[in-house]
Amino acid sequence: MPKVALKGSALLNPLPAVLITSVKDGFVNVFTAAWVATICTKPPMVSVSIRPERLSYEMIKASGEFTINLPTDKLARVVDFCGVRSGRDVDKLKKFGLSLEEGISVDSPSIKECPVSLECKVKDIIPLGSHHMFISEVVQVKVDKELVDDKGKIHFEKAKLMCYSHGEYFSLAGSPLGKFGYSVQKRNRGKIL
Amino acid sequence: MPKVALKGSALLNPLPAVLITSVKDGFVNVFTAAWVATICTKPPMVSVSIRPERLSYEMIKASGEFTINLPTDKLARVVDFCGVRSGRDVDKLKKFGLSLEEGISVDSPSIKECPVSLECKVKDIIPLGSHHMFISEVVQVKVDKELVDDKGKIHFEKAKLMCYSHGEYFSLAGSPLGKFGYSVQKRNRGKIL
Repeated sequence: MPKVALKGSALLNPLPAVLITSVKDGFVNVFTAAWVATICTKPPMVSVSIRPERLSYEMIKASGEFTINLPTDKLARVVDFCGVRSGRDVDKLKKFGLSLEEGISVDSPSIKECPVSLECKVKDIIPLGSHHMFISEVVQVKVDKELVDDKGKIHFEKAKLMCYSHGEYFSLAGSPLGKFGYSVQKRNRGKIL
Repeated sequence: MPKVALKGSALLNPLPAVLITSVKDGFVNVFTAAWVATICTKPPMVSVSIRPERLSYEMIKASGEFTINLPTDKLARVVDFCGVRSGRDVDKLKKFGLSLEEGISVDSPSIKECPVSLECKVKDIIPLGSHHMFISEVVQVKVDKELVDDKGKIHFEKAKLMCYSHGEYFSLAGSPLGKFGYSVQKRNRGKIL
């Protein structure tokens, strides 16, 4: 397939689209972030890049804490809205009637309707340009009981999560293509690709 | 839904699963990364977190360059294999008969079978623990002609990309849930959620 050469741009896709909660002076805000990543396994760390002009930037910089909530595909409209409207103009959590649960290791609450929440503490803030990157440690995780089996294994495939790809939201409700390591399992040998 | 409280871990999902190519002394290697992100829009920047013991760590640290190739769902087995086997033991590109295209702004080639490639230059390496984060600028992008319309718009939804969620690969081949901004478009007012 012939290619078109274009100048450098943010074309990495697909990406997570998560709801991030933070609190300052008793006000809880939520915003949607896609410029977010796992950056280290041990210790478990994530990065979130935020524009300095956003309300959440100010709130998270002041508190040094936030919570990442993983939305299901049913929350796609909420995710979209929380990415285009500011907490300065509308109380987004109230607007959608979302329920909050108290944080365990951080003051920022988590969103009950999201099946997985990651409580994070900021370790460093790196200015990069339009966005500043918050390097953070995941200090606590909360997972819906229904996703955890008797052996403690988490069944993310039941969660119907969503992702973001170049301006569109997609559901992960379908069957997986395969499991990590399936390409080297015995029964698959000889029919890679 | 009641939650189970667990210690902090890398549970951010879903994530990209991309094929990263690099070159050193004429040998081109490829490995799969999910600990990867867009971290800034202007300038366009990405981060890739790599374990120091991996061959690609050594190669990218030495060259200061790499290319991120976005795989389609048809390449899921390749993506899986390139995440579990090392270039020290097997020439993964040759094994799968993948075709390479010369880099434009970097020496590392891109994978022809991937519809989008991002050429990157390393700006900084931050040791975090099990992984070190390569903060990098996207200096050039290449996109399949078939994905670009007459107006220059890129149709990622035609690319059938894939993502990674907690040990499983998913296809984005289905219809999108919505487009960015759809929650605030006039016709949707009053029926958010």
